[in-house]
Amino acid sequence: MRPKIYLFGDSITEESFSDGGWGAALANHFSRTADVVLRGYSGYNTRWALKVKEKVFPPPESGDAPLAVMVFFGANDASLPERCSGFQHVPLEEYKQNLVAIVAFLKKRWPSTRIILITPPPIDEDGRLLHPFFDDSSGLPERTNEAAGSYAKQCLAVAAECGVSAIDLWRKMQQFPGWQKGYLSDGLHLTANGNKVVFEEVIGRLREEQISLETLPADLPLIAEINPNDPLKSFEN
Amino acid sequence: MRPKIYLFGDSITEESFSDGGWGAALANHFSRTADVVLRGYSGYNTRWALKVKEKVFPPPESGDAPLAVMVFFGANDASLPERCSGFQHVPLEEYKQNLVAIVAFLKKRWPSTRIILITPPPIDEDGRLLHPFFDDSSGLPERTNEAAGSYAKQCLAVAAECGVSAIDLWRKMQQFPGWQKGYLSDGLHLTANGNKVVFEEVIGRLREEQISLETLPADLPLIAEINPNDPLKSFEN
Repeated sequence: MRPKIYLFGDSITEESFSDGGWGAALANHFSRTADVVLRGYSGYNTRWALKVKEKVFPPPESGDAPLAVMVFFGANDASLPERCSGFQHVPLEEYKQNLVAIVAFLKKRWPSTRIILITPPPIDEDGRLLHPFFDDSSGLPERTNEAAGSYAKQCLAVAAECGVSAIDLWRKMQQFPGWQKGYLSDGLHLTANGNKVVFEEVIGRLREEQISLETLPADLPLIAEINPNDPLKSFEN
Repeated sequence: MRPKIYLFGDSITEESFSDGGWGAALANHFSRTADVVLRGYSGYNTRWALKVKEKVFPPPESGDAPLAVMVFFGANDASLPERCSGFQHVPLEEYKQNLVAIVAFLKKRWPSTRIILITPPPIDEDGRLLHPFFDDSSGLPERTNEAAGSYAKQCLAVAAECGVSAIDLWRKMQQFPGWQKGYLSDGLHLTANGNKVVFEEVIGRLREEQISLETLPADLPLIAEINPNDPLKSFEN
């Protein structure tokens, strides 16, 4: 059976199979080689993720070690505590500990599985004010780019500490002029172009971990390998 | 763990997670309720599908009965035998028997799994001549709409005979003026609008089989159900 790649994260993951989404693009890329399994939970932070991890992943006795797990949390943890998304806020130090605990859980369950942490994306505060999630008359965004950056930095620190891979999406996206509206649809979630950045980064990081179309066997004979003069020969085994 | 919906078919299935694809749209629709598992094999006909069925689906002892399986073959079987895709051709009577055998295999393995057959789409012969798969100087398309229609009819007959559901995509698509270029990108494969037709038909048929967002439990608490004043209460069990 095909190996699996899990996408574990918040709404940016849950929405990743919508039009132009990075999850669908991954599934399409690996259409004959790996199953991309969607485990995105809108609104979740690392505190909640830690509570549900045993229900998200298959039990150890299933013997079904994934090829890779993407862990993509932080955008909700970084909500400012005193503003309208404050109930999703997780203090920076706890965020770090929670991520360490999630990585430790995955490493213990599946020592051979590649783990890739993804930092929260940057925040366009203007976009957040234009597209508020709640009725809010404060005139202040519930997330800031500076806060997201602090969480991104801790995410990278966890990856270094735990010896796993990471994608610095916060920094990467900001290298492109116009990232605010070009990559973010509402100051937080991704446009089609923003999704492309995530897809390219994930593919690149997986390749560094020796997970690519070159290394993974195709599931069943490809049409190009089937002899038109004797097609059934390809299906003899 | 989440239930699964398998998509078993040819290139129209293998490509269904590309931008605007019907498979990705299904995965997005069921993003918190079911895993959509891609088992599309470009170029395959029912003869080859029958050979590989044991490798495509999990073994019976896994106990992992899918919610539903889409079986979407016929576009390659209907290739004309004397033209350039002739090696993919399967005679009409054998196509019918093969489909019956695939349904019987699935029913025996998982009696409770809903099976939905999808007929081949219509063929735009002009589109096939504009976008040939092979160098071919005959000036004749390797598929015709009439042949696709004969296979579609047999597909529906199999569904009736076996007591499973079916989507008459061949007929459905032709109800819309301009289907030739509006729904087909090369006379055979689907445009984004063609993919939307498949998605809507599949969702509708699944709903008739009691498989919908209303009947499937969400995997883990939805953000709207989490009490902002006491979020962890939702995670106590």
